[in-house]
Amino acid sequence: MLSNLDKAELLQQYEQIKAKGLSLDMSRGKPGSDVLDFSNGLLDLPGRDYKSANGFDCRNYGILDGIPEAKALFAPILGVNPDNMIIGGNSSLQMMYDAITREMLVGSWKGKGGNVKFICPVPGYDRHFAICESLGIEMLNVPLNENGPDMDKVEELVAKDESVKGMWCIPMYSNPTGTTYSDEVVRRLSKMNTAAGESFRIFWDNAYAIHHLTDTPDMLLNILDECHAAGNPDRVYMFASTSKITFPGAGLAVMAASDKNAAFVRKNMGFQTIGGDKLNQLRHVRFFGDYNGITKHMKQLGDVLKPKFDAVLEILERELTPHGLGKWHNPNGGYFISFDGNPGTAGRTVALCKDAGVVLTGAGATFPYGNDPEDRNIRIAPTFPPLDELRAAMEVFCVSVKLANCE
Amino acid sequence: MLSNLDKAELLQQYEQIKAKGLSLDMSRGKPGSDVLDFSNGLLDLPGRDYKSANGFDCRNYGILDGIPEAKALFAPILGVNPDNMIIGGNSSLQMMYDAITREMLVGSWKGKGGNVKFICPVPGYDRHFAICESLGIEMLNVPLNENGPDMDKVEELVAKDESVKGMWCIPMYSNPTGTTYSDEVVRRLSKMNTAAGESFRIFWDNAYAIHHLTDTPDMLLNILDECHAAGNPDRVYMFASTSKITFPGAGLAVMAASDKNAAFVRKNMGFQTIGGDKLNQLRHVRFFGDYNGITKHMKQLGDVLKPKFDAVLEILERELTPHGLGKWHNPNGGYFISFDGNPGTAGRTVALCKDAGVVLTGAGATFPYGNDPEDRNIRIAPTFPPLDELRAAMEVFCVSVKLANCE
Repeated sequence: MLSNLDKAELLQQYEQIKAKGLSLDMSRGKPGSDVLDFSNGLLDLPGRDYKSANGFDCRNYGILDGIPEAKALFAPILGVNPDNMIIGGNSSLQMMYDAITREMLVGSWKGKGGNVKFICPVPGYDRHFAICESLGIEMLNVPLNENGPDMDKVEELVAKDESVKGMWCIPMYSNPTGTTYSDEVVRRLSKMNTAAGESFRIFWDNAYAIHHLTDTPDMLLNILDECHAAGNPDRVYMFASTSKITFPGAGLAVMAASDKNAAFVRKNMGFQTIGGDKLNQLRHVRFFGDYNGITKHMKQLGDVLKPKFDAVLEILERELTPHGLGKWHNPNGGYFISFDGNPGTAGRTVALCKDAGVVLTGAGATFPYGNDPEDRNIRIAPTFPPLDELRAAMEVFCVSVKLANCE
Repeated sequence: MLSNLDKAELLQQYEQIKAKGLSLDMSRGKPGSDVLDFSNGLLDLPGRDYKSANGFDCRNYGILDGIPEAKALFAPILGVNPDNMIIGGNSSLQMMYDAITREMLVGSWKGKGGNVKFICPVPGYDRHFAICESLGIEMLNVPLNENGPDMDKVEELVAKDESVKGMWCIPMYSNPTGTTYSDEVVRRLSKMNTAAGESFRIFWDNAYAIHHLTDTPDMLLNILDECHAAGNPDRVYMFASTSKITFPGAGLAVMAASDKNAAFVRKNMGFQTIGGDKLNQLRHVRFFGDYNGITKHMKQLGDVLKPKFDAVLEILERELTPHGLGKWHNPNGGYFISFDGNPGTAGRTVALCKDAGVVLTGAGATFPYGNDPEDRNIRIAPTFPPLDELRAAMEVFCVSVKLANCE
């Protein structure tokens, strides 16, 4: 397969690149200035009118779970009733972390100590896995296939072990593979029998729910509805945020849950916090106006991001396909391209890139405990660098992949 | 003592008040519009320049524990080195709750289950007590005397029981009594022997650190320095916020701790959250400029609040002192006046006020489990109502106190 690669020539190419002294960052899924600039209108909002539509002074204490117009504005992202929404601070990660620690400290997992396990579709999101690892939650890998997690494996694991209390899902344009769960997968998740019974929770991180890159976006079934229909109404916590809609550092995080779960969350949030920043909620409401405003905004962002994804795909195809190296998808949305090299080459590829001035997400980061058993998956994050830097970085990446395969 | 009160006349007064159909709220320690308006400059900041002094794009991900200029701006409030500061979201309550759950889940209290106890100076802050109650932490009352908590009692409790892991303190202008801890109390807290050893933590909620009402403010010793000097460097977590400096719902919460504790907090915060809203940090930095700006701002707020406190004190003195009813302090700062009536009258007084259209903080709220053993303490919160409403409410309060004592 690699016979048509000339190692000496590759080494020469690599040294030439290294000599350029590049400093490029494709490590994190963060938007670039080009995308952030579309939200600069937020920077001098809300302006001197600090009252919500119902006359509440958003400067002051009060309203734990979000002003009504912010709930209404963001509910369509998750496809839920505004009454089932809870608006948090600027971090959906925090809403997830807190949802887990809440279950451990005062919820249905209380007293289980280290004996809580999570199902983790792989490859997946490093910060999900880091939450589990930091809290001593054991992670069980399940392959993420083309239509979502391997449901035979998931059903087997949840049926036989009552300590399997949770599961991570990024159901739409998954990080990093771009996978959207099929209707069948969503239905099986909502219906499956769990040994943990009603204490089993799916953490449905719909971070890229409306982050389309094409005019023919993927479609995702509403799992809250499906769980309700399946007689498991309290199985899922849904999460989303405006981190990749407006500003990653100063956006709004939201969650949605069944009436019972939402009441449980609100009750304990009331002990934990005074509630999210209502002026930031008002800021977002005034900026977007309505859901149509969000849709138009996302179209603008997609128009900036699409050429970046196209550049990555074009360079991968040009440089690697002729050599039969690697596999990747062309996602319809999201923030990443997932690259699977030959087994045993991911770590080396990332190291070669780093030495040549291109920082990638660490090899193994897409697996629990940072351990990619085959050492083959690399997460490519095309969104942050300007297009010319991205192209330069991808050239380095492809030379590094080839070199890693020669060694 | 009550012989000079005419019950029939009081009842008549009370019914006349009731007939007015008042609707006044003295229940929470929140600022009124008059105070909030001083911070309206925040409402259109940061403006289009979104970069911190070191060139960081505050719109984007990054910087977990606060931008340097925000740390530098707020460090003097707690009297610490900016390196020991961590800036959170908009809720210091959340920083406290999370500091406790962190100790329980991954810190030195891990595995103690329900067997964690806190010392609670009383009367104190209901939301501190609610955190403990919600997490199953047993609370041990200690009287809050004129110079701070009864240290003989505190020393005895921490010395004999290793499950006493924590203590709540509002060391400056305490909620609700206005007490500031004396130097001796701070030194004894920093030096005392604790059966829990290095896992004992003081939760130093310095919510009113710079909330003076006079030109001769109270002074508080720096407990972080004292703990360091006493060989217990990691004993204290300090907290503060701008909730009663700028906007309660959209301010900044901060904490400070020893190098070791701050590193522990940062490490686990990194699993929990992307970090606080850096645009809100920038907003506050631009609004105040420097610490001198904060000092001037607080003087303006104090000038609005002082007449409210004076009105409460004047009416209490005029109406109740002649009858020998009740005890209260004239605080040099903070947000409350603590009223101690005769035993057995607080609940009735609050109920009478409520029936006459004046909502007070619930009787018992200033004690753990909502249980004031003598039913005598009422927290008066003069800050929210306009002065005329406050006067009207205090007249109702005094009639209610008298009536409750006649019954």
